[in-house]
Amino acid sequence: MTLLPNFETIFLRDDDVLVVLDQVLLPNEVKYLELTEQKDIWEAIYKLRVRGAPAIGVAAAFAAYLAAKEIAAYDFEGFYPEFKKKLDFINSSRPTAVNLSWALGRMEKLAQKNREKPLDEIRAILRKEAMDIRREDIAVCRKIGEYGAGLLSDGMGILTHCNAGALATVKYGTALSPLYVGMENGLQNLRVFCDETRPLLQGARLTAFELTSAGVDTTVICDNMASSIMQTGSIDIILVGCDRVAANGDAANKIGTSGLAIIARHYGVPFYVCCPTSTIDTATLTGDAIHIEQRNPEEVTEMWYERRMAPMKTEVYNPAFDVTNHSLITGIITEFGILRPPYNETIKRVMDEKKQSL
Amino acid sequence: MTLLPNFETIFLRDDDVLVVLDQVLLPNEVKYLELTEQKDIWEAIYKLRVRGAPAIGVAAAFAAYLAAKEIAAYDFEGFYPEFKKKLDFINSSRPTAVNLSWALGRMEKLAQKNREKPLDEIRAILRKEAMDIRREDIAVCRKIGEYGAGLLSDGMGILTHCNAGALATVKYGTALSPLYVGMENGLQNLRVFCDETRPLLQGARLTAFELTSAGVDTTVICDNMASSIMQTGSIDIILVGCDRVAANGDAANKIGTSGLAIIARHYGVPFYVCCPTSTIDTATLTGDAIHIEQRNPEEVTEMWYERRMAPMKTEVYNPAFDVTNHSLITGIITEFGILRPPYNETIKRVMDEKKQSL
Repeated sequence: MTLLPNFETIFLRDDDVLVVLDQVLLPNEVKYLELTEQKDIWEAIYKLRVRGAPAIGVAAAFAAYLAAKEIAAYDFEGFYPEFKKKLDFINSSRPTAVNLSWALGRMEKLAQKNREKPLDEIRAILRKEAMDIRREDIAVCRKIGEYGAGLLSDGMGILTHCNAGALATVKYGTALSPLYVGMENGLQNLRVFCDETRPLLQGARLTAFELTSAGVDTTVICDNMASSIMQTGSIDIILVGCDRVAANGDAANKIGTSGLAIIARHYGVPFYVCCPTSTIDTATLTGDAIHIEQRNPEEVTEMWYERRMAPMKTEVYNPAFDVTNHSLITGIITEFGILRPPYNETIKRVMDEKKQSL
Repeated sequence: MTLLPNFETIFLRDDDVLVVLDQVLLPNEVKYLELTEQKDIWEAIYKLRVRGAPAIGVAAAFAAYLAAKEIAAYDFEGFYPEFKKKLDFINSSRPTAVNLSWALGRMEKLAQKNREKPLDEIRAILRKEAMDIRREDIAVCRKIGEYGAGLLSDGMGILTHCNAGALATVKYGTALSPLYVGMENGLQNLRVFCDETRPLLQGARLTAFELTSAGVDTTVICDNMASSIMQTGSIDIILVGCDRVAANGDAANKIGTSGLAIIARHYGVPFYVCCPTSTIDTATLTGDAIHIEQRNPEEVTEMWYERRMAPMKTEVYNPAFDVTNHSLITGIITEFGILRPPYNETIKRVMDEKKQSL
């Protein structure tokens, strides 16, 4: 069983059932979860059945709407404490995911703002807001794709790292959006190489899955094969996602990204970071200020938690992310266009313009 | 259970039992096999219980001696066809391992050369020859270690890739020999980082095992973390082994080596290739002429052969080795000293000197 091309990771059915692709089972099984209960949505986020910051934000927004729907109250005073309790519960599913608390906060503020209205009207407003958050995600990703697609041409070889595809968002993704939009626009014979992305194999499990489902010519490589494949001349461009961009253009992304950028520079392959401007954090001046999370050693030493692959006495270094120096980044593809060096200036300009347009 | 420091991978006990560390069970179990039968030695090589080109060569030499011992014949004419048959059998265990056929050929030629002598004397000569082959391996590795140890000092951080340690040879290894010899010479607080080395994890399974067994401060990293760890300043030198060196110094080694060399150059970390001169092939002019074996896709897509980790429809690129351009290599550490650029000249000089000394 495979996905249809242009599948969507998460959506609300007309009968108010939240439908979510269960990413834990991929690539071996394609199963859509049908969620209505808060505890089930909490579990889906907690167990990474929904993952990727944008997708988590959308799931949280729908959770907030469904919470509002199930509260039996006569007025806002009766409604709000219950609502807040349910939002806090959902927020506890992944304490570090910014999009989660951002989406819940947006829903809560909107409810507050409309507190004088009848509860049914508030519920309708919240439903529309969740749909808007979802639509905005699609629109932003689509824009990134449109700008990025301009860099592609028929027959190109694209290398990507981790999963910054449709599965991490509602549709299109960030790093993979230029590919999908390019294909919609008629580009042909694009070939994508996916780093498997140790330790959690998001590239092999998720990126290769969504690409093959969309009919893309897909090749998985181990992370350490990137130099070898670039040596063959098969890679024309590298597209990666991003977790945080500093004011100077330094970009934190899944571990392995910085090494890939260095190798790309060596072989003269253009290296692009794809992200919405919401990922740009101008309060962080350089990458040095970005805190990198160290994760569980067992992710490295136990292959998919089944069998120990390293001696007990060894230490393990397992950072989740690394920082790619801005000097190695050819461009940053956002929903407002492609930023080029000097990033200090181009990032400031786009963020100022964005602020003025709000 | 752990190994003693300075353990040996393979040796002949006084009672003519071949003792071999079973590397398939590492790092979860330390078990020495006691072999006397040809079929058991064949199985040990075939199933990678003994691995590493030098160690396989030594195993083959002992196999040849034990074969000679078990043949009941009255004269060389009766002995030789049986002997040849047994050598061919051992040679079929790993058809592509050069050291295997090299060691068997050396044993066969020696038997031929002494064909006029009584069979018991021939058997004794073969026993001594196998012991010599083993001793030579230790001596060559030790020499590499002595030259390489001169590059190390107290507290250094060393990064290595794959397993070019004692487990791949009889003792010391190639890439790890400078470390072991340095420790014997009193160097302190050396810290080693091992690339896990996908897809077959020789770094996590074997290198981390032999290092922790020898009491070395050992840290396993995923291959894609090398840039991140170099960024922290923890790595002072990179030592790797090698499968073939071309006349211009281009070096073929386990997949991932070339990317590591590029990243090392970026961060200004010295990058050394460690190998006996038997690995240098002056008939190969550059790395372009080295054929790179493509291996089984399942090594990448199925985690240790237990569970599929990539979609069925994806292609896989799985080269066993890559070529590191000589321009990225700081030096080549051999049993005759450290070769420096220009390699065309220094390699030619050392190989000419070696030829004259034989």
